[in-house]
Formats: sequence, structure tokens, C-alpha cells
Amino acid sequence: RKDSAKMSEEASSVDLQLESFEGFRVQCTLKENAQQKIIFVQGELPDRAGPAVVILEKSPFSQETIQNVLSGTTALKLSMQNDIYGQYEASIDPSLNRTQATVIYPASEDLIAKLGSKETNLVRETPQDYELITKPFIEEKSLSLQWIHNILDHKAEQERIVYEDPDPDVGFILLPDLKWDRHHQENLYLLGVCHTRGIASLRDLRATHVPLLKNMMSKGKEVISEKYGIPTCQIKTYVHYQPSYYHFHMHYLHVKFEHPGGLVGKAHLVEDIVDNLECFGSTYYKERTLTFTLRDNEKLWRRFQENQ
Amino acid sequence: RKDSAKMSEEASSVDLQLESFEGFRVQCTLKENAQQKIIFVQGELPDRAGPAVVILEKSPFSQETIQNVLSGTTALKLSMQNDIYGQYEASIDPSLNRTQATVIYPASEDLIAKLGSKETNLVRETPQDYELITKPFIEEKSLSLQWIHNILDHKAEQERIVYEDPDPDVGFILLPDLKWDRHHQENLYLLGVCHTRGIASLRDLRATHVPLLKNMMSKGKEVISEKYGIPTCQIKTYVHYQPSYYHFHMHYLHVKFEHPGGLVGKAHLVEDIVDNLECFGSTYYKERTLTFTLRDNEKLWRRFQENQ
Repeated sequence: RKDSAKMSEEASSVDLQLESFEGFRVQCTLKENAQQKIIFVQGELPDRAGPAVVILEKSPFSQETIQNVLSGTTALKLSMQNDIYGQYEASIDPSLNRTQATVIYPASEDLIAKLGSKETNLVRETPQDYELITKPFIEEKSLSLQWIHNILDHKAEQERIVYEDPDPDVGFILLPDLKWDRHHQENLYLLGVCHTRGIASLRDLRATHVPLLKNMMSKGKEVISEKYGIPTCQIKTYVHYQPSYYHFHMHYLHVKFEHPGGLVGKAHLVEDIVDNLECFGSTYYKERTLTFTLRDNEKLWRRFQENQ
Repeated sequence: RKDSAKMSEEASSVDLQLESFEGFRVQCTLKENAQQKIIFVQGELPDRAGPAVVILEKSPFSQETIQNVLSGTTALKLSMQNDIYGQYEASIDPSLNRTQATVIYPASEDLIAKLGSKETNLVRETPQDYELITKPFIEEKSLSLQWIHNILDHKAEQERIVYEDPDPDVGFILLPDLKWDRHHQENLYLLGVCHTRGIASLRDLRATHVPLLKNMMSKGKEVISEKYGIPTCQIKTYVHYQPSYYHFHMHYLHVKFEHPGGLVGKAHLVEDIVDNLECFGSTYYKERTLTFTLRDNEKLWRRFQENQ
């Protein structure tokens, strides 16, 4: 969800509503993960100029519907039988076997480059690198926050809001991440977007933001716990650096959900952020060298290379 | 594929060949993984005594069939549209959307116990918790370090050593992790075990250990880079807290390898450890509250509960 910049303004009027993928022309696979059963495809929509990106991800199984899946409606074809082990190809009724499809149109060059890239590099960003390289890069990108302002101004995704604390300083909007189907506890994934503007990322956090962090963390966990029946000690909250968009937001996941966005070198636990600001100085995140990964064809990586 | 023991002998004659799951009665979900779209279910087959285990795993997408999936046969139902992002529920034709089913019958008690799912809990360990709960726990376990001493004393696994720096203070032994097949770059995984004894974990690290950390990190990366042809900026190094054994060691992975052991709340980047010790005080890891996950049936989790 980024890099759309100017294109998004033109596109907001594009009211795309597909009923099937009829006429879609696949150009290439940008990325896939057999472990996760996800694929990112670049292609063209019928009668629309420019590339679209389609992300398909199969839904997880759920305890609520598993008896319906393990019934006469699921046909089996034996492929191997050995001792106590039988292996089958199963055909599950489509109504019990959904796939999440995300269609991004128009898709910017940046997005396609990021998804299609091959090599990943570890970057060590000193405070000086941030001022010289990353900060100017963020400022150029500020236009692409339109979609997040739409949410905060109740112009879009209003019906998806799970909870809102309207306080201008410590308030936030909680809503499901696009990756989550809103049904399964196992891959529960929500986002908290703060109302206050001007915190681009982790780098901008100071001790004055501790009340915001604590409020987002505790209220968010409480609401999720009540609404989805998960103990608060099984909800993890973290922040990404680099984030995919530079308006401060927080990720809420089921502790069992091992999403790669939670890897060290990308994710920072909110509890740790609070501790560091409270115990090791208000400018902890201004002064620290931060490590993250960038792909070969990301703009920010090229900026880092130019400045070496 | 074990634990079937005697039962399998009786069962090998059982020629089970299912055509659907008609009459299958779900008893419970043993384990599931939303990320991998896999579920392990215990239940009963019609007219068969004793439990069966069914494992369902959705198939990954493939480049060969993706154009068929992204066609008129896949129906879409819009769930959300905002700016350039559209989210749909997709119904893919069953012939393009298979699921692997493994049926284990009869399933032994051992197998069922092993698969039986456990809850995972986030723990916040204060410095006081460490002294009161974790440290005594580590000290009781010290006997179990024999195998690591065997490696350091060249009494075991000598032929697996990739590199050794024999220095008693900053030296270490580098060897492949058991998870790595030693062939594929994509899941490259090595371990560095320091010669010096007495550093149980991250908690014990002080500024005096910075030379050890820097030596293990830089020499390890250099050796791996030369031997396996990976640029050093594509090798990530981290430390686990809690570790699986309490003799200080370091993990070296290909930056693209998204192993769950690298998740925040478990992994700590060595670069960050060095920075924290150098810039934010020698006792940073003694004073900080550390967050990690523990499963319900882990001994340390029970100790934390007893001390609440």
C-alpha cells in the first residue's frame, strides 16, 4: 500500500468493480510463496490502460467450518497408500474454499519494482543517513498518503472500522489489515492508525509519544480481545521500520501468526519502544542506528547506494 | 512418520480407500497454521474403531496454471474498494484449487499427543523476574550443556566445523545448523558458538563483550561469504532470547530466509546489541524488560505462572 503518488489521485475516480477475471491478461509473476500459498501477478485488465497487480492468497482453514469441509461434499482421489498413511487429492466446495484476491489498479512502477525484485540487502541507517537520505525520500512521497487520510476523515473504509478513539493526540482508528479475512482467529491481523499527523515513523517517536503508544497498544488489545475472544497476552503489537507508508501505525497480530513482517530487522515491539523511550532517553530512536532490509530495485536502496 | 509402532502392523492390512469424507466425525483440531494454510484434525471414520488424523494443506499457486485461474472461471465478490485497492472474495474452480489430504488411520495416542496444539503466550520478563525465575531455571539446566562442550573440546561434530577462531576470549566455532541441508543458499543457516564459558544468554552481555560480538559477527560473515558466495550485506546475524540452550551462540542466516526463529520477540540483531551496549550503557540488557513467547506446556511458563 504505497508508492501510488500522483497516480492515486487520478485513480480515485476509477470505480473498478470486477465480477470475474474474464479478459485478464497475465504478463508475469512478480513473486510467489509456496509455503504461504500466495502469488503476486502483474497483468492487464480488459479495456484499461497500464498494469494492474493481482495478489491471490488462499484462506486458512478454520475450526468453525472444518466439519463441513470434512464431509461428503469433499471428493477425494487417492494418490498413494502406504501402511497407515493415505494421501489424497481433495476437491473442496468453492463456498468452503475461498481465496482472497486484491486488485491494485493502476499499479505504479515503484510497486511493481518492489514486488518483482530479486536480491534483499541489509541496511544500517545511522542518524546521519536518516537526515541525508531517508528523510528527503519520505518528504517526496508524502502525496501517497491520500488513502490513509481518506480513512481518518471517514471518506473511505468507514464500515471496516473496528474501533475509534477520536482523541486528536492519543486517538486512533483500528481496522482489519487487508491480509486478514476477518473470520479466522489464527491469522488475525489489524492495524491501528493514529489521528495525529506528523509522525512519519519510528524515527520520529519521542518520550512525549509514550501516552499515544500506550493508548494504542492497550485499547487496541482490549477491543480485539473482547471482539474476537483472544486473551490480551496472545496479541502482539509491533511497528515496522521502514514502514510501507509514512503515517504512524501499529500492527496487531495473534501471537501464533508467524507473519514475515514480524521478523527482526523490520518489526519493533511496541513494549520495547516504550521501554527504550522511558528508560534510555527520549531521543533513543533519533540517535540509534537502525537496521532493515531493502530490495535491489527499491528507490530507497538506490539512494543509499548513491550516497555511499 | 513414527509413533505408529505396533498399531501399524495390525493396520497395514486395513485397505482404506476413501472417495469423500462422508460420515467423518470431527473430534478436535490438533494443530493449524494460518500462514501455511494447513490443519491437523482428529476424528472418526465411519464404521472404523479408534481415531484417525486428517491433515489438509492447500496447494500453492503455480505459474503454469495462473492464467487459467485469472480468467472468467474465477468469480469475484467485492468486499472493499479504496483508492487503487480493491479486495475481493474469489471462487476458483475446484479443478484449479486442489487441497492435499493425508489420512492417518489408525492414529496412535503418541501421534495425537505430539500434534496436540499448545497455546503461546507473550511474557514480559523484568530484571527482577530474571533473578527470581529465569536464572534459577537456567542454573538447574546447566548439565544439559555437555553436547556443546563436546563440540568446543573437539570431541564431537569435528567434521562439521566450517571455521574456528581458537582465541579463548573472542574466539568461536562456526558450524551449520541442523536445519540446513548445506546445499541451498536460500535457507543458509549456521551457528557460531563462542569458546568463552559463562555467558548464559543476552541478559549476561555487557560492554566488555563487544569485541567478542564484533569478532563473531564479522569473521563469521566473511567466512560464510567466501565459502558460500553470498555478499556479507545479505547475511543476517541474531541471538535468541530465550535461547534453546544457555551457552552464548549466534545465528547466521541468508537475509531472504524468513525463518520464524527470526521473529521479533525472539530474535535480537547483533548490530543492535552492540549499539545498545556501546551507546545506551553496559548494563542495557541487565536493566531492560525483555519480551518473548512461551508455550503452555513449557517448564519456564509454569514457573512464571507460579510466581505471579
